[in-house]
Formats: sequence, structure tokens, C-alpha cells
Amino acid sequence: MLELKLKPLHDKILIKPAKGQDKSKGGILLPQTTEEKPERGEVLAVGEGKLLENGSYAKMSVKVGDQVIFKKYSPDEIKIDEEEYLIISEDDILAIIQ
Amino acid sequence: MLELKLKPLHDKILIKPAKGQDKSKGGILLPQTTEEKPERGEVLAVGEGKLLENGSYAKMSVKVGDQVIFKKYSPDEIKIDEEEYLIISEDDILAIIQ
Amino acid sequence: MLELKLKPLHDKILIKPAKGQDKSKGGILLPQTTEEKPERGEVLAVGEGKLLENGSYAKMSVKVGDQVIFKKYSPDEIKIDEEEYLIISEDDILAIIQ
Amino acid sequence: MLELKLKPLHDKILIKPAKGQDKSKGGILLPQTTEEKPERGEVLAVGEGKLLENGSYAKMSVKVGDQVIFKKYSPDEIKIDEEEYLIISEDDILAIIQ
Amino acid sequence: MLELKLKPLHDKILIKPAKGQDKSKGGILLPQTTEEKPERGEVLAVGEGKLLENGSYAKMSVKVGDQVIFKKYSPDEIKIDEEEYLIISEDDILAIIQ
Amino acid sequence: MLELKLKPLHDKILIKPAKGQDKSKGGILLPQTTEEKPERGEVLAVGEGKLLENGSYAKMSVKVGDQVIFKKYSPDEIKIDEEEYLIISEDDILAIIQ
Amino acid sequence: MLELKLKPLHDKILIKPAKGQDKSKGGILLPQTTEEKPERGEVLAVGEGKLLENGSYAKMSVKVGDQVIFKKYSPDEIKIDEEEYLIISEDDILAIIQ
Repeated sequence: MLELKLKPLHDKILIKPAKGQDKSKGGILLPQTTEEKPERGEVLAVGEGKLLENGSYAKMSVKVGDQVIFKKYSPDEIKIDEEEYLIISEDDILAIIQ
Repeated sequence: MLELKLKPLHDKILIKPAKGQDKSKGGILLPQTTEEKPERGEVLAVGEGKLLENGSYAKMSVKVGDQVIFKKYSPDEIKIDEEEYLIISEDDILAIIQ
Repeated sequence: MLELKLKPLHDKILIKPAKGQDKSKGGILLPQTTEEKPERGEVLAVGEGKLLENGSYAKMSVKVGDQVIFKKYSPDEIKIDEEEYLIISEDDILAIIQ
Repeated sequence: MLELKLKPLHDKILIKPAKGQDKSKGGILLPQTTEEKPERGEVLAVGEGKLLENGSYAKMSVKVGDQVIFKKYSPDEIKIDEEEYLIISEDDILAIIQ
Repeated sequence: MLELKLKPLHDKILIKPAKGQDKSKGGILLPQTTEEKPERGEVLAVGEGKLLENGSYAKMSVKVGDQVIFKKYSPDEIKIDEEEYLIISEDDILAIIQ
Repeated sequence: MLELKLKPLHDKILIKPAKGQDKSKGGILLPQTTEEKPERGEVLAVGEGKLLENGSYAKMSVKVGDQVIFKKYSPDEIKIDEEEYLIISEDDILAIIQ
Repeated sequence: MLELKLKPLHDKILIKPAKGQDKSKGGILLPQTTEEKPERGEVLAVGEGKLLENGSYAKMSVKVGDQVIFKKYSPDEIKIDEEEYLIISEDDILAIIQ
């Protein structure tokens, strides 16, 4: 992995998507047909938390290193050193793979 | 059932849909015609609760093992070891079968 | 009536729609022409109440046995032992017939 | 008037629309051309009040017997003993005729 | 002016639109081309104030007799004794002419 | 400048747009191609502040005499003594030119 | 850099977009194909913070000099002395490059 230097804002999360959607890690296979398809990945960095209406931040429910299932929208993709990453909101995380 | 290792986030719930929509379990039959059709299933895992505006979590109203009726949207489907599951929000649960 | 075993979630309500929309029960006749047509029915089960932003539940304004007028949307229909029922939100209840 | 037996929910209001839109009652004439046309009517029953986010109810600003001007949407119409009524939200009341 | 007998609800305001949009009253001329065109008028009656989420009412910022500039939407028009009036929300008031 | 007599409501602001979009005042040039194009102008009058959900008003962040950049929507235009003005919400102010 | 004299309002941020999207600064390359494409830039000025419902301001999570990744919408562009800048909301900042 590259020396990442991104700090996501608020409830945003930097994700490295899993390659090839293979069936390792508990045999989870995600469909590729719908437009907002669930996808697997690893959490590389997390923000400080969702900004609440009272000005404080909610605690993040995921942490660096978590394997997660999330909803992918292509506009969120960025590329660093030829590798693809995503910056998504915590709301788009469906579950943590334990 | 497989050894599931998914922890849903916030108010999300992991569901194993009932096979074939038969009429066991109190004789409940659900229509298959509308796009957001109600469906039956079993709760396999639940999140910590809906994130509230004050930063705390609401108590979940369903628990692991509950038989539930829910609204199904196909983008929520995931596949683990050839079996189909869904990760839905608690808002999409209509009722618990008692 | 069948031995019902459904516990609606939050502010949801299980309704048995009135048959044939006859004019008994105070002579109320509801139109059948618009898409979201008001309809009559009996409350068979109610949820614990609407989940509020502070994490508590609002008190339900209808109770089991109430005859109600409600707005019907067909995706909410379910079938139990060949009978049609609906699970709707309290917001879709227009009035209680007293 | 018939012996009405409807208790509207929350901030809903049962209205008997004025017949023929004549110019009695202060000479008010309401246009008939737009789709959401204002209309006159009498308040026959009111709910307990709008459900607030803290779980309590707001005080209703109209009472039984008030002559009101309101915005009419046809899906809200119901028929009781051949007469047409409406169940609308307090937000759709524009003014009370005094 | 006629003996008006309308009490607007909540944050609603009864307006008598200015005739002909002449240039009196400080020389203000308002364009007539856009669909939601600003217009001048006099405040004839005001509601008790916007209903807040805590159940109380916000103080109205306009009072009877104020000359105001507001955004006009034709569905809000009513006619009383052959004269045209409008019932609008305080949010549609742009400014008070002093 | 004319003797202006407009008091904007709540978070509304009366603006005199800059003529010709020249490059004086720090050399700022704003594009003219998009529909919601940013524009420069001077604040002539401000409201009491945005009405908050607790019934009080937020402090305005701009004051009379400020040179501002704002998003222009043509329906907000008014004309006084042949000069064009705008009444916009504080949310449409992008920045103050210092 | 020019002597900038803009004070963004509330949660708005003045950005100088990076030229040419080269791969310096940690080798980050952003795609150019989607309409709301992520882009890199430097924070030149920040507002006082998002206006909260209680009338106070949330603390800004970015500061002058930060290198950031943000979602670009073309209507937010302004030009100062032939150079292009953007004024965006903090919500459109995805991450800070550290």
C-alpha cells in the first residue's frame, strides 16, 4: 500500500476497493448488475465524524483497517499512483466484515 | 446457516429472505407483483441503532432471530456462499411475526 | 378473524380493510376513482409509536379495534390465509370513526 | 347536518365545503380556475394537534364551527350519506372568516 | 376598503395588491415578466406567527398597514366583493417599504 | 444613491448590483455564462436575521456598505427610480470583498 | 499569488484549483470524466463556519493553506486578475491532503 496522506472530512471515509470481487474473506460475493451496486473494500482513513446540528461530531462507527461493504457511486472515485480509491460517506457503509 | 461475520452499521439489518414465500409461519402470503414488494425473512444481524441528531443511537426494535416482513429493494441484495441476503434499514421493516 | 401474529414496527399499523365499501357504519362512502383513495378499515395491531429524534416514541393515536379512514397505497398490501391486509403508517390515517 | 362521528388524527380537520361558492358570508368569492383552488367551508371536527418532534401536540388554531378558507386537493374528498366532505391538514387552512 | 373579516392562520398574511404598479410610494417599479414576479401590496391581516417545532409561535415581522414587496403566486388569489386579495406566507415577503 | 426605504425581512438583503462588471475593486471579474452566475454588488439594507427554529434570529454576517459576491437569480430583481436592485437571501452571498 | 481580499460567508471556502491536475503532491490523479468531478486545490480563505439551528457557528475543519480534494460545480467559478477561483461549501470538501 502507498503512504496515504488523505484526511477525509466529517463523516467521509477513504476506501480501497477489493480487487476482482473474489470470494475470499468469508465467501462474500456482491452482484455487479445494479447501478448502485454494493462493493467490498478496506477503510484507509476516516473523518472526525458527522457534523451534528449542535456543532459537535458523531462518533464514527468504522475505523482504519475495517473490511466493509458499501454502496459505490462512480463520481466518488479518485486515483492515486495508478490505484483507484473512493471517498464515501459513512451512510453508504452497509456493514463491517468481522 | 453459514457462520456469518457481518456487523450492519447504524440502523441497518442483515436479513435472510424466506425461500419460496410458502404459507408456513401463520399462513402469511405476500404479493409478488409490485416493484417494492413486502417480503418475509429472518434477522441475522442488527446495527447499533439509528444515529440521532444528538449523537446517540436509538434502540433497535428488532433482534437477531426475529421473523420479519419488510420492503425489498433489489439493490440491497448481497450474495454470500451462493446464498442471497439483504442489508436493509429498520425503516423498511413493516412488522415482526410473533 | 384469524389469530394474527404481527407486531408492526414504530408508527406502523396493521389494517383489515372493510369489504365492499358498503354504507353501514354511519353511512360513509369513499370514492374509488383517485389513485390514493381514502378507504375504511379496522385496526388489528399497532406499533410502539413513531421514533422521535430524541430516541423516544410518540404515543399512538389509534388503538386495536378502531374503525379508521386511511389513504391506501397498493404496495402496502399483504395477504394472510387468503385475506388481504395492509400495513400503513399512522400518518396515512385520516380519522377514527366513532 | 348529519350526526358526524369522525375524529381526525393529529393536525387533520374535517371540513364541509360551502355549496355553490355563493357570495354570502362577507361576499367572499373564490376562483375556480387553478388546480389547487382556495375554497370555503365549515370545520366539523379537528384533531388533537400536529405531532411535534418532542412527542407533544401543537395547539390547533381552528375549532369546530369555524368558517375557513382552505386549499382543496381532490384526493382528500370523502362522501358520507351522499354529502361530500374533506379531511385536510391544518397547513392547508389559509384563514378563518370572522 | 371593505370591512375585512379574515384571520390568517400561523404565518399567513392577507395582502391587498397595489393597483397598476404605479411609481408612487418611493418610485418602486416591479418587473412583470417572470412567473414568480415580486409585487407591492398592503398588509390587511396577519396570523399569530409561524408554528415552531416546540409548539410556540414565532413573532411576525410584518403588521397590519405595512406596505410590502412580496412574491406572487396566482393560486393564492382570492376575491372579496369583486376585489382581488392574496393570502401568502411570511416567507414570501421580501421587504417592508418604510 | 437614492434615499432607499426598504427593510428586508429575516435573512433577506437588498443589493445594488455593480455596473458593467468592470475590474476595479481588486480586479475581480465574474463569468457571465452560467444561469446562476455569481455577481458583485453593494449591500444597501439587511433584515433582522434568519428566523431560527427556537423563534430567535441568527446574527447577519453582512452589513450595509459591504461589497459582496452573490449568486443572482433574475426573479429577485426589482426596479426603483429606473435603477435595478435585488433582494436575495444571505445564503446566496458567497463572500465579502474586503 | 495575488493579494486576495475575499471573506467567504458561513461554511463557504475560497479555493485556488491546482493547475493541470499533475501528479505532484503525493501522486494524486483525479478523473476528468464525470460531471461532478473531484478536483484538487488550495484553501485561500474560509468562512466563520456553518450557521447552526441554535444561531452559533460550527468550527471549520479546513484552514487557509490546506491542500484539499473537492467536488467541483462550474457555477461556483469566479475569475480574479485572469486567474480562476472557486467558492464552495465545506460539504463539498472530500479530504485534506496531508
